[in-house]
Amino acid sequence: MQDDAWRELEALVETGSPTALADFLDGLEYEDRTVAVARLPEDARTKLLAALDPDDAAEIIGGLPDSQVTEAFGNMSVAEAARIVEELPSHHAADVVSEMEPERAAEILEEMDAADAAEVRALAAYDDDVAGGLMRTELLEYDADMAVGDVVADLQGNAERYEDYDVQYVYVVDSAGRLRGVLYLRDLLLTAPWRPIGEIMLTEPLFVDDTASTEELRSIFDSITFNAVPVVDSDQRLLGVVRRSALQERLAERSEHDYLMTQGIVGGEELRSMPMLLRSRRRLSWLSANIVLNFIAASVIAANEHVLQQVIALAIFLPILSDMSGCSGNQSVAVSMRELSLGLVVPREALRVALKEIVLGAINGTVLGILVGGAAWAYSGTPWLGFVVGFALLLNTMIAVVVGGTLPLIMKRFDVDPALASGPLLTTVTDMCGFFLVLTLASHMLPLLIGAE
Amino acid sequence: MQDDAWRELEALVETGSPTALADFLDGLEYEDRTVAVARLPEDARTKLLAALDPDDAAEIIGGLPDSQVTEAFGNMSVAEAARIVEELPSHHAADVVSEMEPERAAEILEEMDAADAAEVRALAAYDDDVAGGLMRTELLEYDADMAVGDVVADLQGNAERYEDYDVQYVYVVDSAGRLRGVLYLRDLLLTAPWRPIGEIMLTEPLFVDDTASTEELRSIFDSITFNAVPVVDSDQRLLGVVRRSALQERLAERSEHDYLMTQGIVGGEELRSMPMLLRSRRRLSWLSANIVLNFIAASVIAANEHVLQQVIALAIFLPILSDMSGCSGNQSVAVSMRELSLGLVVPREALRVALKEIVLGAINGTVLGILVGGAAWAYSGTPWLGFVVGFALLLNTMIAVVVGGTLPLIMKRFDVDPALASGPLLTTVTDMCGFFLVLTLASHMLPLLIGAE
Repeated sequence: MQDDAWRELEALVETGSPTALADFLDGLEYEDRTVAVARLPEDARTKLLAALDPDDAAEIIGGLPDSQVTEAFGNMSVAEAARIVEELPSHHAADVVSEMEPERAAEILEEMDAADAAEVRALAAYDDDVAGGLMRTELLEYDADMAVGDVVADLQGNAERYEDYDVQYVYVVDSAGRLRGVLYLRDLLLTAPWRPIGEIMLTEPLFVDDTASTEELRSIFDSITFNAVPVVDSDQRLLGVVRRSALQERLAERSEHDYLMTQGIVGGEELRSMPMLLRSRRRLSWLSANIVLNFIAASVIAANEHVLQQVIALAIFLPILSDMSGCSGNQSVAVSMRELSLGLVVPREALRVALKEIVLGAINGTVLGILVGGAAWAYSGTPWLGFVVGFALLLNTMIAVVVGGTLPLIMKRFDVDPALASGPLLTTVTDMCGFFLVLTLASHMLPLLIGAE
Repeated sequence: MQDDAWRELEALVETGSPTALADFLDGLEYEDRTVAVARLPEDARTKLLAALDPDDAAEIIGGLPDSQVTEAFGNMSVAEAARIVEELPSHHAADVVSEMEPERAAEILEEMDAADAAEVRALAAYDDDVAGGLMRTELLEYDADMAVGDVVADLQGNAERYEDYDVQYVYVVDSAGRLRGVLYLRDLLLTAPWRPIGEIMLTEPLFVDDTASTEELRSIFDSITFNAVPVVDSDQRLLGVVRRSALQERLAERSEHDYLMTQGIVGGEELRSMPMLLRSRRRLSWLSANIVLNFIAASVIAANEHVLQQVIALAIFLPILSDMSGCSGNQSVAVSMRELSLGLVVPREALRVALKEIVLGAINGTVLGILVGGAAWAYSGTPWLGFVVGFALLLNTMIAVVVGGTLPLIMKRFDVDPALASGPLLTTVTDMCGFFLVLTLASHMLPLLIGAE
């Protein structure tokens, strides 16, 4: 890979003509082109996209991170933006439009061809996680009465338009637009031209409603070899087609999102090329919510300062207890998130999950309690301190895995994104319980703990 | 969705005939079928797969979590396993085989058709993250001299075999098997049957080496509308084809892997249907490594116990300092992981990342330092304690974001999985530095801190 192609590109944007730019990009390998454009400073990227042919600009936009696309469309003129959006495939245009500020999106749609704009608006109204939000509307659809020869003639006559469709299947509909069957393109090769396609189609085709979830789509694509599934409305009218790759892309996006959220990157992806203050503000929004949770947990220590004062060695084990319980709980969170996305658990099964986890917590808590409690005994020289620390860790591990395992299910039931809040809420609960357990145990055993010191 | 279909299925496995089982599964919606089989207890699932037609079993296996597939193949007889593996598409068979115990895999391959086995072995030798590991070898490939009519005749004659190929493109090779061009299936529709395909093919087709990385493939698919790219060896001989959906699936798998790893789920995915002791052992393997890191960090507190003894209020703020710095660092880890996977940063740019992060750390550290330091002042009534806590948090935030931002790049350079160790190593470093900073500052200001108490 040419890591520095973007520097040359940046110089060209400043000085070069649109033709020189297009030539330079054509000269790059596919894999270097997107990365070069993605690494440009914001204003150079906007300038470049506006200078290119809308068709070429649309191709490049397909490969840029979402945040850069939104930013570029925000910076260029409405007319420039509209010309590029028109060149995008309908489903991609809808994604781009729904990421924009609503007023900006309205302006751009206003400037577009009215039919295109209507289609984009309809697609943008769907949630990203249902078939309607994942489908593309570019497809080959013919009436069941049409003859094979006429379909082939249409394909020939519009070959250029269908070039970008990249279709493998031909859908057969009745006069009301209701899905009736499906054909492989190759079936057209093997049939006499006078036969109606309704006679050679596969009847009772597999289809999904526009409201089908990604979990349903995943199960469908897991069980079939087709690469696309048609999408219909409640009257079984054909609306579009969801491809296997569109679903896979959405699943990749979602686990990326989950990963970023759990690590405290909220409000959309962050790239280091973004303005420093925006990055700082977004990270702080999450950190400052977390401070509040930390204060709540720490208040448990503050309330028991007198215990700590008398057995100072406990102060060494508080952060260990906090970290280990947090880790145990996060493991359970991850398993629940994974099982949710595979459809192996549903929100109302929280009790079943809790029962499974509590046994695991008892086993792991015992092992961890012996290890950490043993260390506490060795460090302080008093077995009772070891008991306090170890027993608190055992109980708190059981609490952590139960809370961690059920929290994502509970949040899902209340339509809160489990990736966002599971981690911080979990550690607050486990910190509070952990600090409470160890300090309360210690306060009841003070004579034993102090006597031996 | 029928959440309880698996209970009925389990009963049928115990009592029913293979035909009754096949009928029951046929009666389920696609989306319910995989979930029902995935929820079965381990032995019922193995029994079911062995009882079904190998073809049907292969279809179901396509939708199960990897761990269940490996487990089922481990439990059934070698002959049963071999018959099912033969029915899987080559790339999928290779994935399954490379997940198995090596001896088990060898036995199964031995039992298979020799040509199939050789192909699966060759594919299994590739890394999962290069084009060779993602390609499928089922493709349509013809000599450039062949006439369009002959190609169509071959398609017709072998329609049944090609049924599972699901191909959209026809690849054209020379007599040595080197890639020379590509055709859309539809091009065959539009051409006189006597013309050689070499005349109508797109020449200079796009292709990748079998060693091309997922980052390169992502950039390629981002920039083109094709759904598949041919893969060649170093002599440009055609080996297979990578589909867009195969790449997307791999990317989804990888971010899932990253997510699970950062949450401490190592040694492969965990499902709650797995044996309790296996789940416990795997989670403990990671937790016990983490204990050691915790002891290292806590040793800094132990070494400064005398300071803590004199300013007990500090003990309340140690866990807050630890948690907040860990969170700030993890945000930087996530941004670096994301930029690495987009190809926007390469390992040798650690210095550039560090410089970008340190500024951000200074801004966020100042804000967080004022908030937490203010709280410490308010709680203790002494401004000096606020200063100690706040200033330590400022410095430690700067350390955390620099370490968090660069650690994934450094680990990647040394070929260690950044998702696995970034989190625990990061928090150990930030804990050690944080505890050291706050306790050292406090020890130098003891008269001020104690005087005011």
